This record gives sequence, C-alpha cells and structure tokens, in this order.
Amino acid sequence: MTLILFAAPDLWPDYEPHLAPALAAAGVEAQIVTEAPDPAAVDYIVYAPSAPLQDFAPYSGTKAVLSLWAGVERIVGNRSLTQPLCRMVDPGLTEGMVEWVTGHVLRHHLGMDRHIQNPAHLWQPGGPPLARARPVTVLGVGELGLAVARALQALNFPVTGWSRTAKEIPGLSTVHGPEGLVQALSSAQIVVTLLPRTPETENILNAVSLAHLPRGAVIVNPGRGALIDDDALLAALDRGDLAHATLDVFRVEPLPAGHPFWAHPRVTVTPHVAAATRTSSAVQVIAENIRRGEAGMPFLHLVDRSRGY
Amino acid sequence: MTLILFAAPDLWPDYEPHLAPALAAAGVEAQIVTEAPDPAAVDYIVYAPSAPLQDFAPYSGTKAVLSLWAGVERIVGNRSLTQPLCRMVDPGLTEGMVEWVTGHVLRHHLGMDRHIQNPAHLWQPGGPPLARARPVTVLGVGELGLAVARALQALNFPVTGWSRTAKEIPGLSTVHGPEGLVQALSSAQIVVTLLPRTPETENILNAVSLAHLPRGAVIVNPGRGALIDDDALLAALDRGDLAHATLDVFRVEPLPAGHPFWAHPRVTVTPHVAAATRTSSAVQVIAENIRRGEAGMPFLHLVDRSRGY
Repeated sequence: MTLILFAAPDLWPDYEPHLAPALAAAGVEAQIVTEAPDPAAVDYIVYAPSAPLQDFAPYSGTKAVLSLWAGVERIVGNRSLTQPLCRMVDPGLTEGMVEWVTGHVLRHHLGMDRHIQNPAHLWQPGGPPLARARPVTVLGVGELGLAVARALQALNFPVTGWSRTAKEIPGLSTVHGPEGLVQALSSAQIVVTLLPRTPETENILNAVSLAHLPRGAVIVNPGRGALIDDDALLAALDRGDLAHATLDVFRVEPLPAGHPFWAHPRVTVTPHVAAATRTSSAVQVIAENIRRGEAGMPFLHLVDRSRGY
Repeated sequence: MTLILFAAPDLWPDYEPHLAPALAAAGVEAQIVTEAPDPAAVDYIVYAPSAPLQDFAPYSGTKAVLSLWAGVERIVGNRSLTQPLCRMVDPGLTEGMVEWVTGHVLRHHLGMDRHIQNPAHLWQPGGPPLARARPVTVLGVGELGLAVARALQALNFPVTGWSRTAKEIPGLSTVHGPEGLVQALSSAQIVVTLLPRTPETENILNAVSLAHLPRGAVIVNPGRGALIDDDALLAALDRGDLAHATLDVFRVEPLPAGHPFWAHPRVTVTPHVAAATRTSSAVQVIAENIRRGEAGMPFLHLVDRSRGY
C-alpha cells in the first residue's frame, strides 16, 4: 500500500519520523513517498493545503485525501478532488486551541494588559467581576468551539454557543440562525469566533452584526480571517464601541507590514499559533483513518461537500 | 444578638447592604453595629485586619471573631484575641484566585507578552508546547492552592502540589517537606505560591531554593509577599535564571514607588487583585458561621493558633 505526503517541503522533516511509527502502531503496512511515478497506484494522500498539488484527477485509485489541516476551504471547491476528503481533527490541535482561547479570554476578563504594560507604575486596586458575571459567546460549536465552550464553562463563564443551524448540546445554552446571532451578540462581553469559512460565514462579523455587541465588548478570533469584515472591525474599535480585538488569523498571512491591525492600540496580532497541528498527535489521526479505510470502516471527519466542511 | 463590624470605614458601604439580608436568609436575627458602648455585650465581631481595633480583651462575651480576609497573620499573634478566630474562605475569593492564576499561568505558557507588546510588528510563528508538556508546581495545597491545581489539571498541565506536611489528595501528585520542595522546584516550569505566611514559609523561595528551578522558569505569586526573598528573586531574574515573576502581593503595599520590581523588565506587578473578597459571597460565609455558632455547631474555617492559619 502506498501513501503519499503532499505538503510544503519544510513540513516533511516534521512528519517523516512520526508517520511510519504511527502507521505501524495502527497495524498498517505502508510505503511512504513524496513522489509518485504512477499516481493511480497511490492509496492515500496525506495533504497540507499549502502543497502545490491542485489536480487530483490522476490519483484515480486513491481511497481518501487526508488533510493535515482542520480548515479545508482551500480545497473543498476543487472539482478534480472527487475522492473522500477528511479534515484533521487533532486532539493536540483542540488542546492547543482551548489553551490559546482560554488564555486570551482570561487576559481580557482580568484586564491583564494594564499590568503587563504599566510604564507609570500605577497601583490601581480593584479587580474584575467574577467570570460568572462575564458572558461569553462562542460562534461555532463544532469540535473546537465546543471544546472551548466547555473549558470556559469550567471556569464559570456563562457561555452561549451559536451555530448556523440548530444544535442541541447538553449543558450548553445554544442559539442559531440570524435571530440567534443577534441574541448571542447582544449579551456577549467576549466573543470567540470558531466557525468554518463558508460563503454563509464570510464577514459574519460586519458593521451590522458588530453593532449588536454591548459597548466595551472584546473579539477573540482564532477561526478564520474572513469571518470578520476588517474595515467594520477597525471602525468599531476606533469609535471605542469595541474595547479590543485579539486576532490569530487573517485574510492574508503573514499579516502584511503596514496593515492597520499591526499598529492599532486596540488590536493584538498573534501569528496563526492558536491551532497549530501537532505532528505527534496528527499522525495518529492519519494512521487511524487509514486503518479504518483498509478495514472497510467509515472514515472519521469526512468532509460534507454540500456544507463545505 | 449583636454583631459588630470592624473594618476600614470605606468597606462599610460595601457590606452594609449585603450583611443584613444574608443573616436573615440564614435565619439569624441580629443587630448590626459599628460602635459598641458595651463591648462585653457583643456576640460576634466581623473583622477586617485593616481595622484600627487591636485590643480584643473588652469583648469578653464575644463568641467568635470572623475575619473578612483569608490571611490572618496580622492578628493571629495578638494575645488579646482569645476568642475563636475564623478565616474567610469565600467561594468568590477562591473563584477569583483560580481565574487570576489560570490566566497568568496561561499567559506565561502561551508567551502572550511578545504579542501584546510587539512594536516591531514581527510575525514569528511557532507556538508553545501543549500544556500537557508544561509542568506546574503549586506551593500550598490548602483551599486556594487545591482549587488552582484542579483548574490547571483540567487544562492538562501536569501539576505537583507541595505542602509542609504530608497530604494525600486523590488525583494530585503531592510532595512535602524540604526534600519534596527540591523535587517540586526541580521539575517546575511555572511555580505558583499559595502558602499561608508563617515563620516556616517566610522566604521559602530564597537564593538556595530558587536555584533548584530549571533555567527559564516563571514564578507566579498571589499568596503572600513574604514567601519570597525579594533580593534573591531579583538576582535570579537579572541573571536570566528565571524568565519572569508575576507578583500580586508584596511586603509593603501599595508597592512603594521606586521599588525595583516596578521597572524590572522580567517582573509584572498586579495590585493585590488576585484574591479580593467578594462582598456578596463573603457575607454568606459570615452568616453561616453565626448560624452555626448559635446552633451550637462547630465554626467553619477556625484558625489553628498553633499552626498560625
């Protein structure tokens, strides 16, 4: 059985030492290659959407394309990709996301920045309210959004989850659709955006929706840059309607020098670090999916092409 | 029954509206006063150690002194205080402490500061390891330390708890005594100090013990200023042996202008905000203790004078 890895060349050294042992541990015997003289003979493609490969048609015998990324918007519309496509749902990625979001939500909740940068050496007592008095809305309650919601609930934050279509989640207050969005934003002091990028979610935070947030609200976006209308966000920050935005993802990455986010006093830029796939746990997900494919079992994390994620 | 409140005058307006309803809810009928013409007739003293009262001898009929503070080192050695003394164990205080510590531990874990202050607008990808690879030691596993340890464990941090005498705590790795301290510090990348201030804990982090920490470790102190030898800490930071110290408590508060902590690039000063007693929940603890006293039940959170906390 042949498995081909398509990724930016600098990723190969990360994956090479981990992939073979993970496959062996899953009981899968495979030859791992990075070039295939006969594409039709490739059984599985392990794929980072940053790879040059765009034409999947020659891989006519391939049983599945296994993405190393959680977000698949770069390839889900590729018409040559007719093979089953699986996203990465890496427990390491989820853990890292929970840590990043919980950290930045607590940072804003506690008002840490005024202590981290305090050139006048001001001693200003007075703490924040308790987390139980700080409502947080999570836009998107998929794998990552739900894990984040649970971690924030464990710290007593009242959490509301919003999704495009109705979801019943035990122990979590959920709303959905356009009306639910107004409700979820109106009550939120901190908003975390963890939606997939689809035509329906692009610019979901725009001038109209941002106006529903109470004054002083904070946006934390580790999801996708395109979820937010940058100009509307900057205008809301400039007016002081929003207190801060902490952004990990951008329409163009690296965020170009000179982009107004860089110098804005109410914006924190982090360099797409919230949801890094962790090699050691990601290869186990890949190996498990190949094992399932070979055993005739359904793949995990199969992308629904009609929804786009 | 008469209850007297001794606290700095600016606290009275905070407590006055909450105390009477909390007592009523606990089924306690009491007259709340701030001055007592006949001290011997006072049944309970609700006491903030910042209050001017130092001579408790006239309160010969008082059944208990109920502190509004968790730390009682200012009064535990007062020989005129022979009445039962209870510390404050406020669920709001515990929650606030958990939020502050979890936030600052995640801040250091994630390396947030370089994104919060990034004047050169550097895009430097590369995230931290997962929390599961970041060992944290909590010095002190009492009410607050244990709550903090549990919150950090929930985020996958491997947590070790240290106490002066042996403690068995299900699901938490604990060590104790001088040898345990060496072990707990040697393995810690982040140390949280939540010990009471006693003669045994004063300067527990000194030049000798700090030297056991691995290079690049971080100290987070929301406990007591006197737990740390300031000069030894500054020397370790100056040498780069320690990467940072985030300090919420100090030997003198407010931290005096000109104290080297203020301007040190590896120190963050927060103004004793980690463990503020929350009026609304603190009054319920007071009311419950008075109810227990009147019903002949043992008081909660009674201070052991021999241990000093």
